[in-house]
Amino acid sequence: MTTPLTRADVTGLITAERIQRGVRWSQVAEEVGASKEWTTAACLGQMALEADQAQAVVRIFNLPAEAEHILQAPPYKGSMPAVVPTDPLIYRLHEMVAVYGPTIKELVHEEFGDGIMSAIDFRIDLSREPDAAGDRVRIVLSGKYLGYKEF
Amino acid sequence: MTTPLTRADVTGLITAERIQRGVRWSQVAEEVGASKEWTTAACLGQMALEADQAQAVVRIFNLPAEAEHILQAPPYKGSMPAVVPTDPLIYRLHEMVAVYGPTIKELVHEEFGDGIMSAIDFRIDLSREPDAAGDRVRIVLSGKYLGYKEF
Amino acid sequence: MTTPLTRADVTGLITAERIQRGVRWSQVAEEVGASKEWTTAACLGQMALEADQAQAVVRIFNLPAEAEHILQAPPYKGSMPAVVPTDPLIYRLHEMVAVYGPTIKELVHEEFGDGIMSAIDFRIDLSREPDAAGDRVRIVLSGKYLGYKEF
Amino acid sequence: MTTPLTRADVTGLITAERIQRGVRWSQVAEEVGASKEWTTAACLGQMALEADQAQAVVRIFNLPAEAEHILQAPPYKGSMPAVVPTDPLIYRLHEMVAVYGPTIKELVHEEFGDGIMSAIDFRIDLSREPDAAGDRVRIVLSGKYLGYKEF
Amino acid sequence: MTTPLTRADVTGLITAERIQRGVRWSQVAEEVGASKEWTTAACLGQMALEADQAQAVVRIFNLPAEAEHILQAPPYKGSMPAVVPTDPLIYRLHEMVAVYGPTIKELVHEEFGDGIMSAIDFRIDLSREPDAAGDRVRIVLSGKYLGYKEF
Amino acid sequence: MTTPLTRADVTGLITAERIQRGVRWSQVAEEVGASKEWTTAACLGQMALEADQAQAVVRIFNLPAEAEHILQAPPYKGSMPAVVPTDPLIYRLHEMVAVYGPTIKELVHEEFGDGIMSAIDFRIDLSREPDAAGDRVRIVLSGKYLGYKEF
Amino acid sequence: MTTPLTRADVTGLITAERIQRGVRWSQVAEEVGASKEWTTAACLGQMALEADQAQAVVRIFNLPAEAEHILQAPPYKGSMPAVVPTDPLIYRLHEMVAVYGPTIKELVHEEFGDGIMSAIDFRIDLSREPDAAGDRVRIVLSGKYLGYKEF
Amino acid sequence: MTTPLTRADVTGLITAERIQRGVRWSQVAEEVGASKEWTTAACLGQMALEADQAQAVVRIFNLPAEAEHILQAPPYKGSMPAVVPTDPLIYRLHEMVAVYGPTIKELVHEEFGDGIMSAIDFRIDLSREPDAAGDRVRIVLSGKYLGYKEF
Amino acid sequence: MTTPLTRADVTGLITAERIQRGVRWSQVAEEVGASKEWTTAACLGQMALEADQAQAVVRIFNLPAEAEHILQAPPYKGSMPAVVPTDPLIYRLHEMVAVYGPTIKELVHEEFGDGIMSAIDFRIDLSREPDAAGDRVRIVLSGKYLGYKEF
Amino acid sequence: MTTPLTRADVTGLITAERIQRGVRWSQVAEEVGASKEWTTAACLGQMALEADQAQAVVRIFNLPAEAEHILQAPPYKGSMPAVVPTDPLIYRLHEMVAVYGPTIKELVHEEFGDGIMSAIDFRIDLSREPDAAGDRVRIVLSGKYLGYKEF
Repeated sequence: MTTPLTRADVTGLITAERIQRGVRWSQVAEEVGASKEWTTAACLGQMALEADQAQAVVRIFNLPAEAEHILQAPPYKGSMPAVVPTDPLIYRLHEMVAVYGPTIKELVHEEFGDGIMSAIDFRIDLSREPDAAGDRVRIVLSGKYLGYKEF
Repeated sequence: MTTPLTRADVTGLITAERIQRGVRWSQVAEEVGASKEWTTAACLGQMALEADQAQAVVRIFNLPAEAEHILQAPPYKGSMPAVVPTDPLIYRLHEMVAVYGPTIKELVHEEFGDGIMSAIDFRIDLSREPDAAGDRVRIVLSGKYLGYKEF
Repeated sequence: MTTPLTRADVTGLITAERIQRGVRWSQVAEEVGASKEWTTAACLGQMALEADQAQAVVRIFNLPAEAEHILQAPPYKGSMPAVVPTDPLIYRLHEMVAVYGPTIKELVHEEFGDGIMSAIDFRIDLSREPDAAGDRVRIVLSGKYLGYKEF
Repeated sequence: MTTPLTRADVTGLITAERIQRGVRWSQVAEEVGASKEWTTAACLGQMALEADQAQAVVRIFNLPAEAEHILQAPPYKGSMPAVVPTDPLIYRLHEMVAVYGPTIKELVHEEFGDGIMSAIDFRIDLSREPDAAGDRVRIVLSGKYLGYKEF
Repeated sequence: MTTPLTRADVTGLITAERIQRGVRWSQVAEEVGASKEWTTAACLGQMALEADQAQAVVRIFNLPAEAEHILQAPPYKGSMPAVVPTDPLIYRLHEMVAVYGPTIKELVHEEFGDGIMSAIDFRIDLSREPDAAGDRVRIVLSGKYLGYKEF
Repeated sequence: MTTPLTRADVTGLITAERIQRGVRWSQVAEEVGASKEWTTAACLGQMALEADQAQAVVRIFNLPAEAEHILQAPPYKGSMPAVVPTDPLIYRLHEMVAVYGPTIKELVHEEFGDGIMSAIDFRIDLSREPDAAGDRVRIVLSGKYLGYKEF
Repeated sequence: MTTPLTRADVTGLITAERIQRGVRWSQVAEEVGASKEWTTAACLGQMALEADQAQAVVRIFNLPAEAEHILQAPPYKGSMPAVVPTDPLIYRLHEMVAVYGPTIKELVHEEFGDGIMSAIDFRIDLSREPDAAGDRVRIVLSGKYLGYKEF
Repeated sequence: MTTPLTRADVTGLITAERIQRGVRWSQVAEEVGASKEWTTAACLGQMALEADQAQAVVRIFNLPAEAEHILQAPPYKGSMPAVVPTDPLIYRLHEMVAVYGPTIKELVHEEFGDGIMSAIDFRIDLSREPDAAGDRVRIVLSGKYLGYKEF
Repeated sequence: MTTPLTRADVTGLITAERIQRGVRWSQVAEEVGASKEWTTAACLGQMALEADQAQAVVRIFNLPAEAEHILQAPPYKGSMPAVVPTDPLIYRLHEMVAVYGPTIKELVHEEFGDGIMSAIDFRIDLSREPDAAGDRVRIVLSGKYLGYKEF
Repeated sequence: MTTPLTRADVTGLITAERIQRGVRWSQVAEEVGASKEWTTAACLGQMALEADQAQAVVRIFNLPAEAEHILQAPPYKGSMPAVVPTDPLIYRLHEMVAVYGPTIKELVHEEFGDGIMSAIDFRIDLSREPDAAGDRVRIVLSGKYLGYKEF
């Protein structure tokens, strides 16, 4: 039996091709017609693409034909190799949640009431913030407020 | 033996008093002279305060005298009751890291090279983003880029 | 220092009083003016109550005065004593997620697309389903569909 | 030695074929002669099928001949890639158990006594609930009440 | 605030009194009117007692008056201090599940089909099995077979 | 390098063949000349077989020649895919230990003193217990009592 | 309610008294009439003592009267603060199991067959081994061989 | 790409060959010129061998030529399939640490002071201890005492 | 029963007093007569002190009399609140082990052979390293090389 | 589909070649033009190399051509096979963090204030420290101090 191609395989192929050919995410985003953040997440197996977007990704990364349908199916999202990430860059985000999570909770409740910031109706934007003391990474998170409702 | 007051006790007293008296974090921030995000984090046991800030916090929350020194000592940071947070609001931030963490990693590397966004030289700003389809929570993270250096 | 009352303490007092006095959740729900499901969840520390609801709960369960404000603050939700619940009744729900979780995922995607069932804009209703072969527990879950959006 | 086909392999083949050919679970259910919920769970490796159902599934998904017997054997059920699911849709169900589990426990005990809702003599039904404020996912769980018996 | 009595406290009091007074479980069982296995489990916080049984237990173990109602409420069951028990006696049962669990699964499926042995409609009986090579512990488990049903 | 056959591979081959050919454990047991419980456990990789038993198993399940020696070597026992089993049937045994473990501990100590029930000098017997209200699974565990000795 | 004395409390009292008064375990062992290894384990909550041994321990360590019965009850054994011990001395034993565990398994099987070294019918003896290159700790473990038996 | 041979592969090949050919560890030890305990540990991937020892092992177990160098490299030691071993024989050693670990700690400190028994400058010796009541496994551990030093 | 003072209590008292009185570790080290690193570790519960050192610590931190003996007993070392530390400063050390651990292993083996750096015969020295681009923390670790020995 | 080469594969190839050919890290470092510590970490998959460094590594270790680009991509860092390392050498570093982590935290705070030692702007240097009582491993860690800033 030959094992069928999975979404994880497709992510692996995209990653390998991107490194070998030096493809840039911002170029991919342009061809896909979405932001670089959404496009990268989609290529890394976190989002379902539209048919034409999937075709573009197959073309850019030279993927096998079956990948086209796989990229359009809603993936099993969010799997990283460990609950506490070991990669220093990703760990810093985890640390941010550990240090500021309760602060964000307090301030959302103070401003909006008992509810959450949606992680589905959600946008993320990453950019360079020039700074004389060394440039900064700026990440803007925007998620719809969803209030708990009595029933 | 009477158990001495700890930073966790101080956090508990602040939390209780804030709820009973309906103190707002934005008011506390004004009296402390810092942003509402930093002030809340500091009151929740994540930051060391300056002497006058500690006095203000003791006064606002009616804390015992020993709290003044405790608030000025660098705390053991970042402890939440579980590795994977169970609170829905805080979990959504954890999910954001799980879903977008590798994307952020890719885009920081594409823009800056091999390095990280500092979680120490770091600022956070939370605000309401009015939106006809329902207001949004907007969180801006800004951290200095730190590059790995060959040695 | 006397430890201030926490939400967990309030939950403990409600639980103890309910058992000693044989209070029924459906009676509490009537006085609180909400469904028995929401009311029970709120009394068990999962929801923030309105001022008059909090007063009713304080009165019904003979709680100390400070509980009134505590019940109105958004709680840290969702904490159970273990990641995998040991109580057989609660474990059966956990098993349902393990056995049918991927099925629910597939069917939501088939019917709606790439998105989720909200656990915030969410209702739950529990009732007895008479059955000749032994009555059944019927639980209806209703949550708003939230679709992932490209950005 | 060639590794023999396992139930997990069969699930992988079904998943791959479904995505490539765009097969719908409701069509499969019709050919299998059971509800779409049970059929999907069975195809995802959670239930044992009858001989004719297994033949139908082999035919629909173009499976190797050995799959016919494998689909009829009671499987090792319930394995997901992590104790706390990382996929947002499945996590919302996990969160529902964390937030409402003790509530369901209380209300089952209030209505029935000391016992549980069976996860074996159990049915699940998922449908779309039209709603002006956005359609909702409706999941009905029905499980036989089983009471603890003194002995 | 004085912390209210919990079921765990009641279990602690029973355990302490049993050791100090040398009460035997078989005597308790006789007064409670149930098997020694069910009675011990109930006294250790795993079962809800009937009113007269609760009164007997309060009397035998000299418990505070509030315990009478607490013993009648369905408890949060099954909590042991660790997922893998460290006590050698209890660990041997855990090992039995690790070594013979899949065997039991196979043999139940061979004899009955796809289903389980109920842990609710369940009895346990422990006795001494005289043996020339050293007496043996004999434990008989009896649980109703519950078959999965197509729906 | 071709990977050598392991005991886990042999278990996989036995499982696959049993399903394809519909072999029954009770038949295997007869040919092996031991109880169906011991034989199944041995075939699932938990026991070392005698030479003639290993030959019988190789013949029955059509195993490669190397399997004969592998089946005679004492295996690394007891590995299941997760500490808390996810399969409902095996989980019920785990739950039995969680709910009745301390009860069994108390009753063994009451009857025998400080010691354990051996899991090595141990027998298990599974049978059908006819019952008008639905047949039951009956499992008899018998293990030698081993007392702690002062030294 | 005053919390009753537990075995863990008794262990804590013994530990505190031993440190304050500089009691030596070898002296305790002499008065108890057993080896220093068994006596220390018993005082640290791992063994049940005989009545006269319990009286000796109560006298030596100035324990409250209730401790006498508690010391005679079979304890919940083996609990350490973490699965992987953090104390360097105890960790070295854990490491010995990690490094030499499979070796011991192989050599026991080679010498005896498929079975184990009992941890119940077990003795331990610790002594100083003079050595010119620095004295050594010598620990002799002796446990009865128990063979798996076909049934 | 063909995956290069790793130390784990070499351990697998040795294990397989030993079972197929019935090689005894004591014979291997003789040819290697070290104790059977050290030799077995080395063959199971826990020690680095000298060049002539590696050659002997390659010859005895018919290993591929690359194995000769691999056996001489210091390995990543101590990995077992689970933190808490599931194999009954190895678990008994783990239990010994859980039950007697604090005892050993106390007695080492009483005899030597604040320090540890080295697990590096360490020897282990396993033998059969004839006993009328059933032969015993005798394991002697000898490790250099290393004291903490003030600095 | 009044709970006896433990080493953890003593650490808590030292920590509280240090913060309230602003005691500096370097002053403590001078009075204790050891390095600031060893002294701090000892005061934080990781080392056993000599009698006169214990007296100095009791005097400096105003500890209850019983603390004098407690500080001289070898402590249970190394316990932090979580396996993966959440405090950013301590986490960076953990990350250093994750990123450079295998590198250190390779280089120790290249320089010395198969062995380890002792964590017992070990010194640590922390100082400020002035640097125009921002001062640096310099930590020197020095541990005796211990080689594995064939036996 | 042929699986594309990953960074983990490259690390595996380097490791295998180094052992077979007896390449020394110090030689590699010389050709790469960086310290032996940084070079080893980079070859073990923890750092991104410059183009010419990658070419040198490909040449030295005879790697497939694709490796050249892979070595230049920022890797997912820090993954070891277990949270608590089982290898004795690496565990000693983990133990150092457990025993001295809080001490380092105290002393950094005493010397610098509330901040951390960077693990990014970080250098490590390992050398042999000759010592009459046995040579020592000396590791110097140097990381930029980063202070938390109020905002």
